[in-house]
Amino acid sequence: MEFYIGIDLGGTNVRALLVDESGQTYSEVKESTEKENGPDYVCLKIIRMIQTLDYTDCDGFENVRGIGIGVPGPVDTVNGVMIMASNLPGFENYPIVQKLKDQFKKPVFLDNDANVAGLAEALLGAGKDYPSCYFVTVSTGIGGAFIVDGKLISGGRGHAGEIGNIIVRSNGYKQGALNPGSAEGECSGTAITRKGQEAFGKDIIKHAGNVFALAANGDPQAKEIADDAIDCLSTLFADIAHTVDPHCFVIGGGVMKSKDYFWEELNKQFNNKIHVGMQNHIPLLLKKLEDCGAIGAAMLPMSQLG
Amino acid sequence: MEFYIGIDLGGTNVRALLVDESGQTYSEVKESTEKENGPDYVCLKIIRMIQTLDYTDCDGFENVRGIGIGVPGPVDTVNGVMIMASNLPGFENYPIVQKLKDQFKKPVFLDNDANVAGLAEALLGAGKDYPSCYFVTVSTGIGGAFIVDGKLISGGRGHAGEIGNIIVRSNGYKQGALNPGSAEGECSGTAITRKGQEAFGKDIIKHAGNVFALAANGDPQAKEIADDAIDCLSTLFADIAHTVDPHCFVIGGGVMKSKDYFWEELNKQFNNKIHVGMQNHIPLLLKKLEDCGAIGAAMLPMSQLG
Repeated sequence: MEFYIGIDLGGTNVRALLVDESGQTYSEVKESTEKENGPDYVCLKIIRMIQTLDYTDCDGFENVRGIGIGVPGPVDTVNGVMIMASNLPGFENYPIVQKLKDQFKKPVFLDNDANVAGLAEALLGAGKDYPSCYFVTVSTGIGGAFIVDGKLISGGRGHAGEIGNIIVRSNGYKQGALNPGSAEGECSGTAITRKGQEAFGKDIIKHAGNVFALAANGDPQAKEIADDAIDCLSTLFADIAHTVDPHCFVIGGGVMKSKDYFWEELNKQFNNKIHVGMQNHIPLLLKKLEDCGAIGAAMLPMSQLG
Repeated sequence: MEFYIGIDLGGTNVRALLVDESGQTYSEVKESTEKENGPDYVCLKIIRMIQTLDYTDCDGFENVRGIGIGVPGPVDTVNGVMIMASNLPGFENYPIVQKLKDQFKKPVFLDNDANVAGLAEALLGAGKDYPSCYFVTVSTGIGGAFIVDGKLISGGRGHAGEIGNIIVRSNGYKQGALNPGSAEGECSGTAITRKGQEAFGKDIIKHAGNVFALAANGDPQAKEIADDAIDCLSTLFADIAHTVDPHCFVIGGGVMKSKDYFWEELNKQFNNKIHVGMQNHIPLLLKKLEDCGAIGAAMLPMSQLG
């Protein structure tokens, strides 16, 4: 059996886990991040948390093969630093990987939280029987991760999987700094909620699920919004499929709670938009794991060390 | 020094090369395919061509590490067969890899011609200093290839890089079996020529270069067509960048002959359409190698055998 440490470093909490290669957890520590105290403080906290884990089940810390860290934002995986850290002030270019390497003399790997969640799904969840997997979250935002032969393709600037900015509607809605007609502006939970509120008001539409529920009840205006989202989502999946032809998609995120309304139609439209040679060969699978940030982080050294 | 055999199997001709790991060629044989005689005939021809190559420089055939084949169409790389072979009748599911393995007792690899051309560019051409590379051809059609750490990402059904079918214009032109508004229908050489002929007639517009030349001379209608193509091309590159964040793009194909007109604007629009963290970090590079199909095929065993 092999043992790994996974750190899920979020803006609010930090979790540290000791897991084996199947994702089973043997020890866990959780603390609040206290990010306002800056990166040195948070880094020392992580070191102390790793020291606090119970290593009885692996016969001591020396049998841990490596440490993985998931962080909220794009990462330079080669140098082990965050490129942007809007939710962890001071962590931009902070040498967190080097600090942990110096402290523990173990291999340490860093990647963003969407990527490590995708890695967990690819290795242990819905994608585990497939050589490659494109993981997609359709939630407040839209994000993703691409895993090939058990390894993340993070990209030159850690931006692989930033698929929320893919253009799915020419001259569409401009959300924040994203492209007009971006996937996130057209078919994320936020986008569907926005369109629903424009049509029905904020009292009736609290989240995307309300729109799908109205559509299921036959409301023509809600149906139009829902159909539009399915059109945009299927375009997004088709664009990704033509770029990398993954062996499967694994799809998660809050919008999937309404999947009963759109799942069949999404599959149909996706297959209509891809080359005939791929049709019905790329399954759309539902995310299986819950709360897999720290486990996914622990999979980073496993996937990198081989 | 290591030696490899590359076979470029086209609908018209077959080329066989003996090359080393730097792509230098030591022996070459070329014959017409005579595809009308069927796959068994063509396969025997290839075997004879391999036997005909001069192995003096590598001290005999036994020092060849492996054989690579490039073919026109999507490939099942695991089973070593073509999935579709519209340009090589009978080759669909034909066990060409197994036949050559049985004959020569060497590792044999198969991939499509766009992928092997991209592999050559990634390993020996414009992309050779980058850990990953997305190769794009903008020609009669639009195709591509994704190479990471010197290996092709071919995809589950050999369709990675079939980017001509990515949707860059909602409800745009429907070309053949492709999606309405596909990249190939909007900004390939064929598409630019079509739009130019609609505006100026077939006597004036023979190819896309005529449209760019008119635009460069200030013709407003030609400028509109050219600008539209740049808009669509930059969307295509941005969509790919958000999916895999390659360390570079390498771009080739006939439309690049007119690059003086659009290169600066393409770079500008591409960077405007990608996340700020990637901006000016993903160079658009021009293809360097000529006629690299057989050399790229020879790179297949090199990249796979390590």
